[in-house]
Amino acid sequence: MGNGDFVYPSSSDRQCATHRVAIPPPQPFFMSFKNTLKETFFPDDPLRQFKNKTPSRRFILGLQYFLPILEWAPRYSFQFLKSDLVAGITIASLAIPQGISYAKLANLPPILGLYSSFIPPLVYAMMGSSRDLAVGTVAVASLLTASMLGQEVNAAQNPTLFLHLAFTATFFAGILQASLGLLRLGFIVDFLSHATIVGFMAGAATVVILQQLKGILGLDHFTHSTDIISVFRSVFSQIHQWRWESGVLGVGFLFFLLVTRYFSKRRPKFFWISAMAPLTSVILGSLLVYLTHAEKHGVQVIGNLKKGLNPLSFGDLVFTKPYITTCLKTGIITGIIALAEGIAVGRSFAMFKHYHIDGNKEMVAIGTMNIVGSCFSCYLTTGPFSRSAVNFNAGCKTAMSNVIMAIAVMLTLLFLTPLFYYTPIVVLSAIIISAMLGLIDYEAAIHLWNVDKFDFLVCIGAYIGVVFASVEVGLVIAVAISVVRLLLFVARPRTSVLGNIPDSTIYRNVEQYPNANHVHGVLILEIDAPIYFANSSYLRERISRWIDEEEDKLKATGKTSLQYVILDMTAVGNIDTSGISMLEELKKTTERRELKLVLANPGAEVMKKLNKSKFLENIGQEWIYLTVGEAVEACNYKLHTCKPEESQPWNNV
Amino acid sequence: MGNGDFVYPSSSDRQCATHRVAIPPPQPFFMSFKNTLKETFFPDDPLRQFKNKTPSRRFILGLQYFLPILEWAPRYSFQFLKSDLVAGITIASLAIPQGISYAKLANLPPILGLYSSFIPPLVYAMMGSSRDLAVGTVAVASLLTASMLGQEVNAAQNPTLFLHLAFTATFFAGILQASLGLLRLGFIVDFLSHATIVGFMAGAATVVILQQLKGILGLDHFTHSTDIISVFRSVFSQIHQWRWESGVLGVGFLFFLLVTRYFSKRRPKFFWISAMAPLTSVILGSLLVYLTHAEKHGVQVIGNLKKGLNPLSFGDLVFTKPYITTCLKTGIITGIIALAEGIAVGRSFAMFKHYHIDGNKEMVAIGTMNIVGSCFSCYLTTGPFSRSAVNFNAGCKTAMSNVIMAIAVMLTLLFLTPLFYYTPIVVLSAIIISAMLGLIDYEAAIHLWNVDKFDFLVCIGAYIGVVFASVEVGLVIAVAISVVRLLLFVARPRTSVLGNIPDSTIYRNVEQYPNANHVHGVLILEIDAPIYFANSSYLRERISRWIDEEEDKLKATGKTSLQYVILDMTAVGNIDTSGISMLEELKKTTERRELKLVLANPGAEVMKKLNKSKFLENIGQEWIYLTVGEAVEACNYKLHTCKPEESQPWNNV
Repeated sequence: MGNGDFVYPSSSDRQCATHRVAIPPPQPFFMSFKNTLKETFFPDDPLRQFKNKTPSRRFILGLQYFLPILEWAPRYSFQFLKSDLVAGITIASLAIPQGISYAKLANLPPILGLYSSFIPPLVYAMMGSSRDLAVGTVAVASLLTASMLGQEVNAAQNPTLFLHLAFTATFFAGILQASLGLLRLGFIVDFLSHATIVGFMAGAATVVILQQLKGILGLDHFTHSTDIISVFRSVFSQIHQWRWESGVLGVGFLFFLLVTRYFSKRRPKFFWISAMAPLTSVILGSLLVYLTHAEKHGVQVIGNLKKGLNPLSFGDLVFTKPYITTCLKTGIITGIIALAEGIAVGRSFAMFKHYHIDGNKEMVAIGTMNIVGSCFSCYLTTGPFSRSAVNFNAGCKTAMSNVIMAIAVMLTLLFLTPLFYYTPIVVLSAIIISAMLGLIDYEAAIHLWNVDKFDFLVCIGAYIGVVFASVEVGLVIAVAISVVRLLLFVARPRTSVLGNIPDSTIYRNVEQYPNANHVHGVLILEIDAPIYFANSSYLRERISRWIDEEEDKLKATGKTSLQYVILDMTAVGNIDTSGISMLEELKKTTERRELKLVLANPGAEVMKKLNKSKFLENIGQEWIYLTVGEAVEACNYKLHTCKPEESQPWNNV
Repeated sequence: MGNGDFVYPSSSDRQCATHRVAIPPPQPFFMSFKNTLKETFFPDDPLRQFKNKTPSRRFILGLQYFLPILEWAPRYSFQFLKSDLVAGITIASLAIPQGISYAKLANLPPILGLYSSFIPPLVYAMMGSSRDLAVGTVAVASLLTASMLGQEVNAAQNPTLFLHLAFTATFFAGILQASLGLLRLGFIVDFLSHATIVGFMAGAATVVILQQLKGILGLDHFTHSTDIISVFRSVFSQIHQWRWESGVLGVGFLFFLLVTRYFSKRRPKFFWISAMAPLTSVILGSLLVYLTHAEKHGVQVIGNLKKGLNPLSFGDLVFTKPYITTCLKTGIITGIIALAEGIAVGRSFAMFKHYHIDGNKEMVAIGTMNIVGSCFSCYLTTGPFSRSAVNFNAGCKTAMSNVIMAIAVMLTLLFLTPLFYYTPIVVLSAIIISAMLGLIDYEAAIHLWNVDKFDFLVCIGAYIGVVFASVEVGLVIAVAISVVRLLLFVARPRTSVLGNIPDSTIYRNVEQYPNANHVHGVLILEIDAPIYFANSSYLRERISRWIDEEEDKLKATGKTSLQYVILDMTAVGNIDTSGISMLEELKKTTERRELKLVLANPGAEVMKKLNKSKFLENIGQEWIYLTVGEAVEACNYKLHTCKPEESQPWNNV
């Protein structure tokens, strides 16, 4: 062992203990600081592949790191292209109607949905490391853009300014996403737990569906709020404005979409049926309107879409007060949410296909694609789950499928936009509703309830917050509950009594192992969390209560009195100065009660700090054991063989 | 064992393992919810003493619970009175000059300091459970009151409104304190860690000392900001306004106070010398001014103090906009800080004298004393450290010393206020500076640096925040850093490789025990924190990196390849659904790499959830062992004896 060896003051009463608890060898401050930083920000050691390489090789590896296309393009084969072509065309057929729908949801010109399916996929194809992510706009971020920017500017009264603010928010979202990746702060996204996302997505889907009532019922006026109460009030206050033509069309197409989805789900081979259904609906709907002139009977249509590729929009970004604050806020919230969805989708499919995704690198890719997008008339894009799933099912091999989709969208932009003139908005609403219904994952919520009630609370908190207040409120509620849970874990650690597993020297929680035997005269407590300021008062009180209860119990049964309190420190990962004070006070309290405090198996960090703070000298190093078994053995040995003056110096009260 | 017993599918290959990991017996949801609530809010089981008692006895115990005076008054003896008399008079001699000084610091009329030392101590004497706490106003809360309320109302231009706002803030602070106690949310105060308080107090003391430059230099105009830069700018921009008479007087008295304090510290028997020094300074200073008419040569004096007891102020409380928000904010911040100081002081002295303090009960007492105080022209009071230490040193026995002090202050209010007419303000400044110097505990900061760098960071963050920005900013910085630390503990848990301690079946961290031996073909990892959403992505990446590194190492040495990955779950206190997904993914990854995942010693909570989520069935219950030793033994046994088809079904890739 190193320098940190214990020097035991007397070897005579150490016969029982066979092993020593080591203090880890001291490390210079700079070294340990560097290690901590590395573990915190570079757990995946991204520079590992650069070791022992020539400078030119390093340069190539570095380029490949930021542009993964340089890695896979040279190995790209015709076989791959065939698969990617099918996948790309399939997702394009989904991207076009969805893009138009979501742009409407964001209160932006419908053409923006097509623009946003052209440039960002190209950027992602170069920089992204997922092979299955299909880039596009998403419903939740679109809705958020509409509601958050809508507080500053009315989209109907000032559409140009609103559009420019949307570009600016996208720009900020991209900057945020890329910086999170570059600064290796990707773990912030991890604070959106699975439970949060289930509840949040279901809530957002509910809200988006409610918004579609406007299109389905053919209403002209609608509330700008997203909460369920405002929406219902708005819908039911104008019952006589409902248009049955619109409603029939909407319900009909929704039924069609749901049936195809159900069919494809039952027979995964026919995934393309549900993938093509939206485009089919758009074509059928447009034809129907064109033939029946339904646009004159209350069925709203998209109208003119400008022909041509994305215009430049860099000059449109607004960096002046008072708008910049709103854009910044919108960018941050939509950016984080879009990022969480993109990363989660990328990871899930990577898991399926057994390849690795570097979260921080993905963030840089998604961020860059939004920064570039915001300069080319695109609004916020990410990797939506539905579109990526279709991409995956269609058998995509590489990010090339995104390029194919972009080309298909480009051709649409150049030549086909006039065809959308007669597309009824109600069909778009049906497409959105059918996509959103898939996001309400009630089975996952039931699973959460069964496995972890607290996660269920987080989920339902997010749902209720989103549906009854607003998307931001729901998110804040869910994250707050999640963080409170983490804090509660530390602030209220579990302490449990250990007992001896029969025929062994193993000691375990008596609640988990009801057959474990109490040891006479010894109270063995396990602490399940680091001892920090947040729990040191609690632990002090809780441990005294354990001692009180144990003494009461022993008194009631008339057995031997309590002599030793052993703290099993195995699960105590760390300790701070408040924790050390707590141990010092605990030692005083136990001494006053004629008890001896014994520690079992303190870990490296804890030993280091106990040593530095002189607590080791204070408690006496011979009262620290490597295992609970050895501690109990030593206690028994001292109880029965040693002279009281020697082994119990605290016994002088 | 209970219902939760494992049913092992085949007993033939279980020869090596001797113990089973139990799933704790299932508990109905309501029961476990009740237990969790109890552990969270009632860790000290305050109703314990009421068990098995008659209703009348319960009533008396309940009264005694809220009014501890009913408990100790019947046993009060003449002996006690003698001690309390000495202590009470000593602290009164400190309370009068300090009270006046701090009231000036709060921009309130000096007489308020005396009022606040009369009513609140009487309330506390009835309700408080500390025997050593001496009630009074404190510098930091006074300064905060001045600066926070000063943002709303100028104390010089509108002193009456400012005064009423101070009462209102005190009222809100009291309500907050009492509610925290009644709702058993006292642990919120624990989030102000020891390190935070050291840094915060030193910063606040520095700021208060800086403010005294006004009094010492005899300046008429002074900045309203508290940060060091504004203060220095204000002081040095008016060099020609400095009054040497004032300066000489101030420095002289400061020297006198510091010398007495130094002397009393060296000889604790003469504690009364430093305790009496402030009053002596006030008397000497007043005499000097009276005799030399220094008030006409630039030495400012207190002037008229109104004779008579506290006027009622209930009607003065301001509950109207826009002031109520400011009062609420001020009340919350000053209330929390005052509470933290009072509780910490009470606990420290209780620890010395070996009695117990119930934090939540103390909060109710301190809160009530402020609510009552705010109705009788008092502003925020708590148990200041300096005054309580004097009380303790003077040998107080019960809270009666507070009553004695209150009577002494009452007599002063009734008869002696005119004597303070000539008291020079510069003497009050000297008294404040000398008290504040004691709060700058640089030794504690050095200790923090030595023991725990992160705690030092918290401390210095609080200090710099308070001194360079403002008291609130410093507090927010310190609490934020502390909370980030807790979150980082969970978000970035330590994983470490375990090795076999020679001549034992014990497995420990190889960094802490450099002599522990690696086991061939087996990678043993310990996880030091609960597996929650915040760390599940991290753990997935970190564990794969451990496996990569281990395989690289084995390849380099040409030894046997890796076959098993054992996760020691001892320190994993809990798991959520994200954590379970992580384990499921980890299992898939390891299988793909032809490795077998084995769990060792999952705790009660973890077993419960793994069972509910069907992960136990998924991993195979025969791959969960009670100790790492048994897991390794079983792996070795299977490696050497079992047929590959049977024991390694994952080996089909």
